[in-house]
Amino acid sequence: MKISVTGLGKAGLPLAAVIADSGIDVIGIDLDKQKCQMINKGYNPIKEEPGLSELIKKHGGKKLKATSNPENAKKCNVHIVIVPLFIDENKKPDFSLLKKAFENIGKLAKKNDLVVLETTVPVRTTETFVKDLLEKHSGLRAGIDFYLAYSPERIMTGYSISRFKDFPKLVGGINKISTEKIFAVYKKFAKPVKVSNSRTAELAKIAEGVYRDVNIALANELFKVSEKYDINFWEMKEAAKHQYCNILEPGNVGGHCIPVYPWFLINELKVPLIKTARILNEDITEYYAKKIEKIRGKRIGIVGLSYREGVKEKAYSMSIDLIKLLKKKSYDVYGLDPLYTKQEIEKEFGVKYLDNFSKMDVIILMNKEFKYKNRLKKIKGKVVDVKNVLG
Amino acid sequence: MKISVTGLGKAGLPLAAVIADSGIDVIGIDLDKQKCQMINKGYNPIKEEPGLSELIKKHGGKKLKATSNPENAKKCNVHIVIVPLFIDENKKPDFSLLKKAFENIGKLAKKNDLVVLETTVPVRTTETFVKDLLEKHSGLRAGIDFYLAYSPERIMTGYSISRFKDFPKLVGGINKISTEKIFAVYKKFAKPVKVSNSRTAELAKIAEGVYRDVNIALANELFKVSEKYDINFWEMKEAAKHQYCNILEPGNVGGHCIPVYPWFLINELKVPLIKTARILNEDITEYYAKKIEKIRGKRIGIVGLSYREGVKEKAYSMSIDLIKLLKKKSYDVYGLDPLYTKQEIEKEFGVKYLDNFSKMDVIILMNKEFKYKNRLKKIKGKVVDVKNVLG
Repeated sequence: MKISVTGLGKAGLPLAAVIADSGIDVIGIDLDKQKCQMINKGYNPIKEEPGLSELIKKHGGKKLKATSNPENAKKCNVHIVIVPLFIDENKKPDFSLLKKAFENIGKLAKKNDLVVLETTVPVRTTETFVKDLLEKHSGLRAGIDFYLAYSPERIMTGYSISRFKDFPKLVGGINKISTEKIFAVYKKFAKPVKVSNSRTAELAKIAEGVYRDVNIALANELFKVSEKYDINFWEMKEAAKHQYCNILEPGNVGGHCIPVYPWFLINELKVPLIKTARILNEDITEYYAKKIEKIRGKRIGIVGLSYREGVKEKAYSMSIDLIKLLKKKSYDVYGLDPLYTKQEIEKEFGVKYLDNFSKMDVIILMNKEFKYKNRLKKIKGKVVDVKNVLG
Repeated sequence: MKISVTGLGKAGLPLAAVIADSGIDVIGIDLDKQKCQMINKGYNPIKEEPGLSELIKKHGGKKLKATSNPENAKKCNVHIVIVPLFIDENKKPDFSLLKKAFENIGKLAKKNDLVVLETTVPVRTTETFVKDLLEKHSGLRAGIDFYLAYSPERIMTGYSISRFKDFPKLVGGINKISTEKIFAVYKKFAKPVKVSNSRTAELAKIAEGVYRDVNIALANELFKVSEKYDINFWEMKEAAKHQYCNILEPGNVGGHCIPVYPWFLINELKVPLIKTARILNEDITEYYAKKIEKIRGKRIGIVGLSYREGVKEKAYSMSIDLIKLLKKKSYDVYGLDPLYTKQEIEKEFGVKYLDNFSKMDVIILMNKEFKYKNRLKKIKGKVVDVKNVLG
């Protein structure tokens, strides 16, 4: 058996490395040639991922060969696709990367091959969009001549390797035989759990994101309620906690996952609760901005620019939304994040570099960036602490 | 020390019994004279509550004296109020029972007494409505001459006695000294946990109800989503489960608590998520009714009439809403519930007694009433199983 993994990003590379580590030959495919070279030399391009550097050092260029040429996957009999699916400004998914990936695989796919999608997608994508593309480009019949299944990645940067061990890996085919096939393959490197079909696995993945989005929106709403009644939200949250009640932490929701998945349902069905939650979470920057307006002064510092502490990733970062909003209101905006250099901050986020906290009129602490905790504590009265880092 | 407990219902009587069992003399006050007589003779009027009969048998008429005359609480120095707070058809709370209770206590309260509210109430009720009433009728100053605090009951019929042992008992005064006072008293019979003030405890109690309401609404919404995509919701829910995701069971939400508490916030503040959730849960009977419309035939059986299995309680039972809805649509409605006799079903619910399952065109199983499981399984195709009892 030889497996190709298309997409060597934050989700694909740990998967490819884990498969290689189980003793299977892996061809990793990524458009980024420089990244492929790095991997083949044994260097890990995702430094934030514990355990990944060891695996890349061990298998890069050997069991795990990275390439930008999809044709190098010709000899593979299992093809896994794990490329990103972004949404555009109208919240519609942009399938272009997925389309390209499956066109390439369609051209290579042989009889009895297994094709697997791991990207989180709208329900039924595997059995419709993916199936159609593969059949068109291969001339073979999905579920008969070759097998087609879905298995959602459950990556969280910083925990990706351990999640392969700790989380059950859902697998569901477009038909029964495809489910059996993916189960047999995946049990060589993960803990697969069969579900009835690919769409059940697709919805399960979306549902777990939606669950978090709705519960964070509830926390945000209860946070606002607490402020109205002059109650310490964090104390109230703790007091309400027991085996049947676990209010999550409020705050801004960023990253590739939770801000995206709810739209897969909202676009297709009437889901008023899920939609209300998403809009509430998107509007939370407005709420922070309104808090700032109550404070005299125009110099605003933002600490924490990436979407989450410890992950160098701008995608769907609420700090970017907040910067945009504050600039529109003519504030003088400064930024700081330990993952970005002064130059990167100025260039990529379009703000001044924040080096002197005491010069700011207010500082917004946007994620759990503990690094500056003590410095910020000294000026606590000036800090809007979105994640209660200062305690 | 002698404690009065006003309200000997499903929440008040277990509390009074637990206090008596700790060795403290309790005067229980309830308008229902017959119930008081029963208790004084050692008979438990709430049969569904495990452990309660033993306590009433042991202490009724001795350590726990029940009476309909509030003046019998004259010698008490701690006064606990735990009467129900209903909402009317416009979702506004009806404070009349609370008003009456605190008027009576105001007339009796002496210097250094402690007054405690346990009923779930809108935020700030203790420090405004209750305080004003007590001061008016006692001529004393709350927080100075006497102490005033809030401690939410966390009763669930069937688990009320064990909850006193397992759940932390939040206590918060209208000022610091009131918090200290209630803590000192409550630790004699419960596990009190101090919070900053009464309103923090009030919101914590509402928040735990709201948490469940929102999460059940999410489950209902995902249930509908699953039906649209022809996915087995229960399988999907199980597949999505892990340490960060726990989708609750969908279904109808009844009883005195969860359908009521969200309105305490919705009435006062802008809480779009909590409101959307509440309305979704109220409209779930419409969803069931629509399912029925797809089936030919007019004879509808409803199994499970009380708001929850095992609790003989009509309050806010969704079965009543459903019956109303179906009758309006000219269905021929039959009902069955092991807690109610044939006569009670016909009289209290206004439906025919359901004795022959096979004569029905469809049966709706509204709660986890396992008693008829095997009989219902035989006609599974005809059953709309709201709580997935039949599996």
